[in-house]
Amino acid sequence: MRNIKLTLSYDGTHFRGWQIQKQGERTVQDTVQTAVCAICDEAVKLVGAGRTDSGVHALGQVAHFKTRSLIPLNNLHRALNTQLPDDVVVTGVEEVPADFHAQYSAQGKVYQYEVLNRSYASALHRHRQWHVPYKMNVARMRREASSLLGEHDFRAFSAVEGARRVQSTVRTLRRFDVHKRGDVITFTLEADGFLYKMVRNLVGTLVEVGAGQKPEGALLAILKKRSRDEAGVTAKPHGLTLVTVFY
Amino acid sequence: MRNIKLTLSYDGTHFRGWQIQKQGERTVQDTVQTAVCAICDEAVKLVGAGRTDSGVHALGQVAHFKTRSLIPLNNLHRALNTQLPDDVVVTGVEEVPADFHAQYSAQGKVYQYEVLNRSYASALHRHRQWHVPYKMNVARMRREASSLLGEHDFRAFSAVEGARRVQSTVRTLRRFDVHKRGDVITFTLEADGFLYKMVRNLVGTLVEVGAGQKPEGALLAILKKRSRDEAGVTAKPHGLTLVTVFY
Repeated sequence: MRNIKLTLSYDGTHFRGWQIQKQGERTVQDTVQTAVCAICDEAVKLVGAGRTDSGVHALGQVAHFKTRSLIPLNNLHRALNTQLPDDVVVTGVEEVPADFHAQYSAQGKVYQYEVLNRSYASALHRHRQWHVPYKMNVARMRREASSLLGEHDFRAFSAVEGARRVQSTVRTLRRFDVHKRGDVITFTLEADGFLYKMVRNLVGTLVEVGAGQKPEGALLAILKKRSRDEAGVTAKPHGLTLVTVFY
Repeated sequence: MRNIKLTLSYDGTHFRGWQIQKQGERTVQDTVQTAVCAICDEAVKLVGAGRTDSGVHALGQVAHFKTRSLIPLNNLHRALNTQLPDDVVVTGVEEVPADFHAQYSAQGKVYQYEVLNRSYASALHRHRQWHVPYKMNVARMRREASSLLGEHDFRAFSAVEGARRVQSTVRTLRRFDVHKRGDVITFTLEADGFLYKMVRNLVGTLVEVGAGQKPEGALLAILKKRSRDEAGVTAKPHGLTLVTVFY
């Protein structure tokens, strides 16, 4: 059996997220798996590095599958992009050792979140940016974000369903940058792993601190209470992009 | 009568271009004019700086209309963005002198055209970039583009229907930049005015020169022959964005 690693980019706007749902729901996993099965001419199971929610995008999602097919990688790559709809694209195809697992072998991930910070919305980037019209203090958000770096129990910033499922809610946040260019504020987060909805909960709460709706120091205080009830709003899914998965 | 100038941004993907067509066709002009009429509570005629084709985007399209309405500009701005669908946004509202005309007062325009130059397409920017998979020589395109700067008869790069309608096909091309960043080649064009499909015909032919399908010097030779038959392909509409109209 060969083990094949795919790197994928998708526009999450018209997908019900990554993970296969009940029949009839259009998901990325189902769309790509169906194409792989057709091309390899066998039933394969596509395993993703992690799920992304409805509306969340990816530049570098990773998935793997095992196959008996002898199709050359270049042909597989071309055939997949021919068969797939234009809102999901295979950007890389590699053969990897048998023990490679898209989820369990992952060493870290990078997510990016974009906020459009001005009074009126954007016609062209409406599916890529969360529109936040009120004034925000970027320096304040930057200080606040860096206070969360390091190893912590992020339970307070995880959705309840997700927190129940994982064994540990301790993660190491290696990077939480806040960058403003024109009207666009970009948050870049890197960690060894992220809990369910962790990025969107962190960004949503940080935006409240930036807007003065929560005091400085709020993120660390919420983190320490380890209770979801204390955290702020969950940032909208469409501002979020999974950028890279490290192995 | 007040004369009101609107600056508009739109995602051209789901519009049949700017100009009002036969009933039932969704156009930007019709969509915005309908909203203006409802808010000003009278029949107004919205005049644009120029039409854009189906799929072409705008960051700074300009239009004007005359009205008896006394609605304050801020209220008009807010009401328009509340009423308009999310793929067209009013970015500016001004009261201008009675003789201001969005089309006839224009002194120049800037267009930007984006090409994605790599083997596989982009899921996230598929509605914003023309995907050209074959290798192109950027330095060659840059020399070729700059050879067209200045005042010329651009008839050879205009669509026939358009060329018949205008009095003169002489335009002054002030800027034709070619910029590559990663896999994306951006063409920026500024002129006192553009003929119908001129940007897309220039870019399409330039791409053929870049790919070696036409010899260096081809653009100037085609220009001098003043015949549309000599020019290359017309670049796809969805790579094109109207950036600014100068007054």
